[in-house]
Amino acid sequence: MINLKKIADSIGIEFIGSDIEISGLNNLKDAQEGELAFIDHAKYTKDLENTKASAVIVSSSMKEKVPTHVIALVDEEVNLKLAYASELFAPLAFEVDGKEPVIGEGSIIAPTAFISTGATIGKNTTIMPGAVIGNNAKVGNNCIVYPNVTIYRDCVIGDRCIIHASTVIGSDGFGFAHTKLGEHVKIFQNGNVVLESDVEIGSNTSIDRAVFKTTLVKKGVKIDNLVQIGHNCVIGEHSIIVSQAGIAGTTTLGRNVVLGGQSATSGHLDIAPFSTFAARAGVTKSIKEPHKTYAGFPLMEHKPWMKLQAKIAKLAK
Amino acid sequence: MINLKKIADSIGIEFIGSDIEISGLNNLKDAQEGELAFIDHAKYTKDLENTKASAVIVSSSMKEKVPTHVIALVDEEVNLKLAYASELFAPLAFEVDGKEPVIGEGSIIAPTAFISTGATIGKNTTIMPGAVIGNNAKVGNNCIVYPNVTIYRDCVIGDRCIIHASTVIGSDGFGFAHTKLGEHVKIFQNGNVVLESDVEIGSNTSIDRAVFKTTLVKKGVKIDNLVQIGHNCVIGEHSIIVSQAGIAGTTTLGRNVVLGGQSATSGHLDIAPFSTFAARAGVTKSIKEPHKTYAGFPLMEHKPWMKLQAKIAKLAK
Amino acid sequence: MINLKKIADSIGIEFIGSDIEISGLNNLKDAQEGELAFIDHAKYTKDLENTKASAVIVSSSMKEKVPTHVIALVDEEVNLKLAYASELFAPLAFEVDGKEPVIGEGSIIAPTAFISTGATIGKNTTIMPGAVIGNNAKVGNNCIVYPNVTIYRDCVIGDRCIIHASTVIGSDGFGFAHTKLGEHVKIFQNGNVVLESDVEIGSNTSIDRAVFKTTLVKKGVKIDNLVQIGHNCVIGEHSIIVSQAGIAGTTTLGRNVVLGGQSATSGHLDIAPFSTFAARAGVTKSIKEPHKTYAGFPLMEHKPWMKLQAKIAKLAK
Repeated sequence: MINLKKIADSIGIEFIGSDIEISGLNNLKDAQEGELAFIDHAKYTKDLENTKASAVIVSSSMKEKVPTHVIALVDEEVNLKLAYASELFAPLAFEVDGKEPVIGEGSIIAPTAFISTGATIGKNTTIMPGAVIGNNAKVGNNCIVYPNVTIYRDCVIGDRCIIHASTVIGSDGFGFAHTKLGEHVKIFQNGNVVLESDVEIGSNTSIDRAVFKTTLVKKGVKIDNLVQIGHNCVIGEHSIIVSQAGIAGTTTLGRNVVLGGQSATSGHLDIAPFSTFAARAGVTKSIKEPHKTYAGFPLMEHKPWMKLQAKIAKLAK
Repeated sequence: MINLKKIADSIGIEFIGSDIEISGLNNLKDAQEGELAFIDHAKYTKDLENTKASAVIVSSSMKEKVPTHVIALVDEEVNLKLAYASELFAPLAFEVDGKEPVIGEGSIIAPTAFISTGATIGKNTTIMPGAVIGNNAKVGNNCIVYPNVTIYRDCVIGDRCIIHASTVIGSDGFGFAHTKLGEHVKIFQNGNVVLESDVEIGSNTSIDRAVFKTTLVKKGVKIDNLVQIGHNCVIGEHSIIVSQAGIAGTTTLGRNVVLGGQSATSGHLDIAPFSTFAARAGVTKSIKEPHKTYAGFPLMEHKPWMKLQAKIAKLAK
Repeated sequence: MINLKKIADSIGIEFIGSDIEISGLNNLKDAQEGELAFIDHAKYTKDLENTKASAVIVSSSMKEKVPTHVIALVDEEVNLKLAYASELFAPLAFEVDGKEPVIGEGSIIAPTAFISTGATIGKNTTIMPGAVIGNNAKVGNNCIVYPNVTIYRDCVIGDRCIIHASTVIGSDGFGFAHTKLGEHVKIFQNGNVVLESDVEIGSNTSIDRAVFKTTLVKKGVKIDNLVQIGHNCVIGEHSIIVSQAGIAGTTTLGRNVVLGGQSATSGHLDIAPFSTFAARAGVTKSIKEPHKTYAGFPLMEHKPWMKLQAKIAKLAK
């Protein structure tokens, strides 16, 4: 909890009014009472009108749209101020003090593995050499965490998960605000990653923690090697992500989506359940109809893409 | 060794007849006496007729094609049953008990490196901090294994190999059977990876272990950073795989193949020796003629591809 | 320091004349007095004429172009001889002896982290579990080095840098000479990597050390997960490299360049400042005009590429 007045002072916004306590940052839509939100684009005006946030960072042009029960912090560089505020809520990267980790019955913690303070390991789980479990992270029962895996602080791994070597769960999402001089100011990624049960992840894969709340990988998802999953993504149940695919931030996949090798999606998309994308597919728009197969970049349904490939081959002659 | 009756019971197939001992699983073509194989597609009928396997999981429609000396386990979900059976033969991910590792003369095992039981390190080899050598793995003479490399259990590294940091040798191939409900059941990857001599591998690269037998990287191969090599691939002598390329499972490269940066191949291909693929090439068919250069996706020879690029540039105007 | 006569003997070139001491290898352009350079292509003739190198490996056809004050080592396989010579100057991958590392005030070195001899860690820096800092490497003040990061020997990390888990700084560049038999001979990468201040790098990213001198990442650069940066690249101030992008060796980016996800550049390019490349862009030529936006492969400006995408979509119908 940080006083709003103190936050305003820290980030350089004038604030006169009755002070309140702020529990954290969030976007307008998900924010709860006691949270500080922000609006960086007019397209979120509806969210602003309906927000439960107690305060909001807003530009002067949007100021009149702020509901009367919400405190407005007015500034022309909303994202930059958000970035500064995010640092105030960032926990330490590595805490030495804290509660001894709890290790469940039948679990093996290999020598050279490291379990940070506050972490919990379930029953019959194997944490192999060189694996690192961060502060307050939770690993479920009957998991295998292979060597040199890193699970960042506050992340949660369900039961019967398998995570292969050198994979990283919970590194910071790639989020920055930009100054007028072209410098980039870190937006601290204060969320986490949650893997539900029966998830398997290959080696050298990166799943970024959320800026707020959670990057979520639902039950039964299988992810291959060298895959990138951006912050705040939601991967639907039993989806399959093949090697070297990349999913940009805040994209949501429905259940049983298949993403082929080296395919990619833009950020902020919604992908219908049972969608299949061939290798190298490049998905730049949301997909509404389920059960269809796509390929190519620009993306198209698989059949016209096959025809197009033939035409291109002909064009080359 | 597991009794066939016990396997059949475990995976839910009725089996009446004289019991035999099964030493392991394999595909029809490579299976030896004492092994249990499977047929999941009619195109393997020839392999079925010639198999040396002692028993085979087969659908009722293929049942009559099973040679008389081979025991048939009949089920309509062959792959699923194979997946269940594979778990029975899976060794422990991490064995604490076992023979003390053997370290050759002149070798350096850095502090915080971990050598698992049963492993063998040759002479004059350097295992750097944080590197993990799995159970029963073998590393040859005069190798350098850089920090935080993981070599999984049972893998074999030849002489004079160099493996750069965070690379993973022997993570599980991406193999699953699928239930009617859209869930994925792990096919345990009970094979290994073998690197012959004089192989160099960059950092953050993943080479998956075989489902059966061996993923093989032949002598003198040089692999760059962030490369994906799927299970059961064979990489021919002196091949060069440039950064971020991906080779899907069960593809075989002849000698001196060059795969450019971010290129990729489908699985189950045979690529002729001395084939060269430009950056971003996408190889979806086997290549029979050696000594040719290709580019693009769809793949074509380099010359027409150059023309095509010019045409596309023109089309854009 | 190695005597030139001894080098010539080692690499199999006849050398008669007064011996000198050689301090290291370099390219013609950057070489200083006391260094041995090489010329492997006629296009570098100008550099040969102006070189400050004390000796040069040169083919007989170029021999007469060598300035009189430079000693010529004449051989028809220049690159191969360079590769052999590079081994003579290669330091040990891992030195056990040497000066105790120096750790600045307020810094935390986690258990299972490893700091090699000769290394220096600044003040208020956190080195997390499993991270490995190589011989003589330097990490600045107020840095966070996340778990299982590897910083190779002799690399330099500026102040306020953040390096996420499993990232590798300083693995060998992918450089080989080739024999007539199609074998590859390692060109030892005797340079280093320097990150200036305020650089943040995501997880599972690889930045290769220079063959000579330095791979340089300038101040304020932000690099995402699973990115490849080849040897001898220079990344300009405040550039942004998004996930799974790859930059081939010896390419120089000006300041504030943006490379989108899965984009790539060829090697030996110069990219003008403030250039922006969309996701999947493939950059094969240098860019001279700053402040432009590009997309596609073949690369084109963003507007015609948008039109092209529409035309391709139409062609598919």
